[in-house]
Amino acid sequence: MKPKIALIMGSSSDYPIMQQAEKMLLDFGVEVHKEVVSAHRTPEKMVDFAKTAKDKGISIIIAGAGGAAHLPGMVASLTTLPVIGVPIKSSNSIDGWDSILSILQMPNGIPVATVALNGAKNAGILALRILAIQNASLAQKLEDFQHSMMLDVAKSQQDLL
Amino acid sequence: MKPKIALIMGSSSDYPIMQQAEKMLLDFGVEVHKEVVSAHRTPEKMVDFAKTAKDKGISIIIAGAGGAAHLPGMVASLTTLPVIGVPIKSSNSIDGWDSILSILQMPNGIPVATVALNGAKNAGILALRILAIQNASLAQKLEDFQHSMMLDVAKSQQDLL
Amino acid sequence: MKPKIALIMGSSSDYPIMQQAEKMLLDFGVEVHKEVVSAHRTPEKMVDFAKTAKDKGISIIIAGAGGAAHLPGMVASLTTLPVIGVPIKSSNSIDGWDSILSILQMPNGIPVATVALNGAKNAGILALRILAIQNASLAQKLEDFQHSMMLDVAKSQQDLL
Amino acid sequence: MKPKIALIMGSSSDYPIMQQAEKMLLDFGVEVHKEVVSAHRTPEKMVDFAKTAKDKGISIIIAGAGGAAHLPGMVASLTTLPVIGVPIKSSNSIDGWDSILSILQMPNGIPVATVALNGAKNAGILALRILAIQNASLAQKLEDFQHSMMLDVAKSQQDLL
Amino acid sequence: MKPKIALIMGSSSDYPIMQQAEKMLLDFGVEVHKEVVSAHRTPEKMVDFAKTAKDKGISIIIAGAGGAAHLPGMVASLTTLPVIGVPIKSSNSIDGWDSILSILQMPNGIPVATVALNGAKNAGILALRILAIQNASLAQKLEDFQHSMMLDVAKSQQDLL
Amino acid sequence: MKPKIALIMGSSSDYPIMQQAEKMLLDFGVEVHKEVVSAHRTPEKMVDFAKTAKDKGISIIIAGAGGAAHLPGMVASLTTLPVIGVPIKSSNSIDGWDSILSILQMPNGIPVATVALNGAKNAGILALRILAIQNASLAQKLEDFQHSMMLDVAKSQQDLL
Amino acid sequence: MKPKIALIMGSSSDYPIMQQAEKMLLDFGVEVHKEVVSAHRTPEKMVDFAKTAKDKGISIIIAGAGGAAHLPGMVASLTTLPVIGVPIKSSNSIDGWDSILSILQMPNGIPVATVALNGAKNAGILALRILAIQNASLAQKLEDFQHSMMLDVAKSQQDLL
Amino acid sequence: MKPKIALIMGSSSDYPIMQQAEKMLLDFGVEVHKEVVSAHRTPEKMVDFAKTAKDKGISIIIAGAGGAAHLPGMVASLTTLPVIGVPIKSSNSIDGWDSILSILQMPNGIPVATVALNGAKNAGILALRILAIQNASLAQKLEDFQHSMMLDVAKSQQDLL
Repeated sequence: MKPKIALIMGSSSDYPIMQQAEKMLLDFGVEVHKEVVSAHRTPEKMVDFAKTAKDKGISIIIAGAGGAAHLPGMVASLTTLPVIGVPIKSSNSIDGWDSILSILQMPNGIPVATVALNGAKNAGILALRILAIQNASLAQKLEDFQHSMMLDVAKSQQDLL
Repeated sequence: MKPKIALIMGSSSDYPIMQQAEKMLLDFGVEVHKEVVSAHRTPEKMVDFAKTAKDKGISIIIAGAGGAAHLPGMVASLTTLPVIGVPIKSSNSIDGWDSILSILQMPNGIPVATVALNGAKNAGILALRILAIQNASLAQKLEDFQHSMMLDVAKSQQDLL
Repeated sequence: MKPKIALIMGSSSDYPIMQQAEKMLLDFGVEVHKEVVSAHRTPEKMVDFAKTAKDKGISIIIAGAGGAAHLPGMVASLTTLPVIGVPIKSSNSIDGWDSILSILQMPNGIPVATVALNGAKNAGILALRILAIQNASLAQKLEDFQHSMMLDVAKSQQDLL
Repeated sequence: MKPKIALIMGSSSDYPIMQQAEKMLLDFGVEVHKEVVSAHRTPEKMVDFAKTAKDKGISIIIAGAGGAAHLPGMVASLTTLPVIGVPIKSSNSIDGWDSILSILQMPNGIPVATVALNGAKNAGILALRILAIQNASLAQKLEDFQHSMMLDVAKSQQDLL
Repeated sequence: MKPKIALIMGSSSDYPIMQQAEKMLLDFGVEVHKEVVSAHRTPEKMVDFAKTAKDKGISIIIAGAGGAAHLPGMVASLTTLPVIGVPIKSSNSIDGWDSILSILQMPNGIPVATVALNGAKNAGILALRILAIQNASLAQKLEDFQHSMMLDVAKSQQDLL
Repeated sequence: MKPKIALIMGSSSDYPIMQQAEKMLLDFGVEVHKEVVSAHRTPEKMVDFAKTAKDKGISIIIAGAGGAAHLPGMVASLTTLPVIGVPIKSSNSIDGWDSILSILQMPNGIPVATVALNGAKNAGILALRILAIQNASLAQKLEDFQHSMMLDVAKSQQDLL
Repeated sequence: MKPKIALIMGSSSDYPIMQQAEKMLLDFGVEVHKEVVSAHRTPEKMVDFAKTAKDKGISIIIAGAGGAAHLPGMVASLTTLPVIGVPIKSSNSIDGWDSILSILQMPNGIPVATVALNGAKNAGILALRILAIQNASLAQKLEDFQHSMMLDVAKSQQDLL
Repeated sequence: MKPKIALIMGSSSDYPIMQQAEKMLLDFGVEVHKEVVSAHRTPEKMVDFAKTAKDKGISIIIAGAGGAAHLPGMVASLTTLPVIGVPIKSSNSIDGWDSILSILQMPNGIPVATVALNGAKNAGILALRILAIQNASLAQKLEDFQHSMMLDVAKSQQDLL
């Protein structure tokens, strides 16, 4: 079965950030299931989503949220799938500190793989690295991607001259 | 029906702080229902607790948690009862900042009445103030309590001499 | 007697934020008394306001302030009514940290129910939740409101496609 | 009339810090009036104290408080005397940040002369510097004091060898 | 001799903030001596300024600076006059935190009366309060000023209706 | 081939924290390769380790470090394996903030899956969740583990009575 | 051999800040070698650069980076040349705190000479001060530069009048 | 002439930290001149020290201070020698943040080479790296030192087994 990554977010206003993860995954040919799931506005939908994700063929859940960002941690408590959390510097966030700490500081037992503030692109790449553990072709693409970043640096050297 | 206040916490290790709320409530003759309910270790119990609290005669929920403290906000999303959040400076907390921000910075729509770090006693008093809106006898007791604090200050004046 | 909520703020420049609470309350048919009361510019008016609020039929006081935000805590010390504090990110505030800490970190004995930075809408909802403890019709409206947020999430799902 | 400095604090537990101001003032022969005045537990006493301080011969008010520290700012709003604020790292304070910001970040119109966290000794010296503006003998003593600190440095040089 | 207040700042770019102090002092008829004195670019001028200020008839020094703001504290170490420090949120400052901490956290022995971030107006008022200790006419003007702020609040009440 | 998790840390003084990850992995029957690899003291060993990890059969790298914690990010830049970073509150760290930010705030292109401060146990569980994506028996063990946490909460309820 | 200063940065987007160092050095007649070297995108180039810098006649390395800024510290671990780190407030940085702490908080053994946030100009001057230890002509130019700053202050005094 | 490093500190209580720099320098055979020089208690001695340091054969100045730490920056403004600043977490410091920001955030024109909080050992090594630019024997010793750290890591590997 082809792996599928779920991309969930507390509000559609988070999508401009979260679609950087989507783009990354689609570029690598990975199927993405995207959905607005709010811990606070749709808590029961969230429970249902998290509990059934695995059976629906989801391998990894990427969850973005801002402010008192409970979505990634709550989803992680309701599944055994790996959950990647993206702290979002939303309009109601205090410079992003609340988003980061609410996602990162999970208690022992329930981990969330947290990436940088607004780091949705890295969330996508992290999901790809996880999938690539047992997928040599994906691993090769990731190496090519890493190589291309190296070449970008060489090109950007021109900007200095 | 006599009002009943629920006192919930993510871990029994939070009880030494949370019992300051319990003591306050019992001193004022208010019934307390206390329970360990963990957002992350017992998410479904939490959902069930929050959804049924009102029907069980609970008027107000006081919820304490530390670190990525999701309990107060999640419970608030699953009930229309007022929820009072107590940020706890637990051992895994970064000086309490994560506890505070995870509880305080709720998105529009789902409020949590947040009190000071480790401020369980104030959570209890806040619950009493709420109950006293329509309970003249409780209101009188609160005024006596406020008066007694005033007298304490007068007495503590002796410590300076 | 119909409940009445007081909405006070340290400066009329706080009103664009605070009126989100007012709108919420009016939408639910609750009477609002709004007033500029400054802890620092009108300290004696503040004392008088707080001491007489209850006798004027006020049930709950919502107080917004920024910077060294003393209004909510001072009012709470002069009444036994529940006081909801709204930290405002005013122009003289350091990213809101001073507003939050001055309101949240009240000493034992005098609670302020603090909501998120600029979270006036949630202050209004919190007041409604408190009133709804003994008002079944208001409780029903709150449930409808919570349900409507759930529907909003479903609609916003379209934005992702 | 001999100048008199008022030394007030929100709780007698602040006295071990605040007495460093007292000692400094007494060493320089300045009369000290010390009193526990709590913004939150004795708000009306605080109003009365601040409004009558000048008529009782007080020249300067030094006020210490911790947590949501409203005492210095509130007193400053009720008098035209200079008010010196001492942020105290009390047990309920978040590393002192709340104490500092609640005292320092006063709005335009009502200044508080804030000193360092737990800096009661400096509050005393600042009061002496203010009194010395029109008191040549006090000014001379301050110069001697400053000279003695210089000599202490010379002596402490021995500790390095 | 008429009192004279020195207004110094590390850079002329601080003047738009600092002139709020100047305006306040001139409005009250107090003479102002203003000067650019930089702790880091003109350290010896600073030493000379601070050591001779008193003999030139200066009563109080108001010093504004941003970033690693050493001017207020260094001047305070070279005079026994009261020094009021204004932390400025200059372009090279980290949200003002560096400015505040560099001015506020002076060691025991050398106080700086620190006001709020960009709080130059309050620095001016604080200087006036100090001068008013022995100047009844100035004290009366300050009471009128405080009264006028009270009236402003009453007027701003209109903005809410 | 059985999966193997590498557990690396910048100093053996990080081991008391990091062994919580090791214990978790061993409890679940996963092979652990542990090694002291310092970004700053053994940079070339680090490069070699990261570049050869995959060929040595490592599936996931867990890296712990404190202060200016460069190890997790640097290793992530030299491999395409998923890297889990554990910020450690070491003796030279500023309350853990440096450790967290140095690990979390990776630039686009190179993700590190960051867990809570000192959250090595969660790093272990996260690795297990990743391995369980394609390992049904491990997934079942994780569900049992999650169930056992639920039972712990039920037991800890006794502590409250 | 004429001294040569290397100016490296993680991305060409850092150049607008970093060229302030370049300008300073060129103004003083010091040769600059500038290059984009990314710790995370070109880790092996970075190792090679750092290890060969000395043999290529580089005396001092100035490295700028933002976010999880590993470049200065990693380079310092691979050379014995002095490394000056410039924390850059890049778009992905949290107000610059991550940039500062990642560069400043190096463990014992591997120092980075850190300058202010975006302080590339000071990085250039610091390099010049280092070169001037054994270069009397450069030392004289630095004294002239310091003198010219003093004159600038005198001129800026005009802005106040 | 043999190079000489000055080691100055604001108080002898800073010596337990600062002597780590001294030990490092002495181990490498570099002469150390150590002195208590306080920016605030001995400002004129500080001016004299800084202005004459170069003529006394000092090559580099290492200055440690805590709280509102003005010593490194002030000395840097009075000399053209490189100044290394050591932020010290002294008893009056707020977790070291004031010490760091007061030293690091110097304005353009006057750099201080700042090392980690309490990082005196690194200040010593940085001084050695600077001296080694033109001293091949010292450079070799530094390489040996760096090599020995590498060996320490290998040894500490034993602690894990």
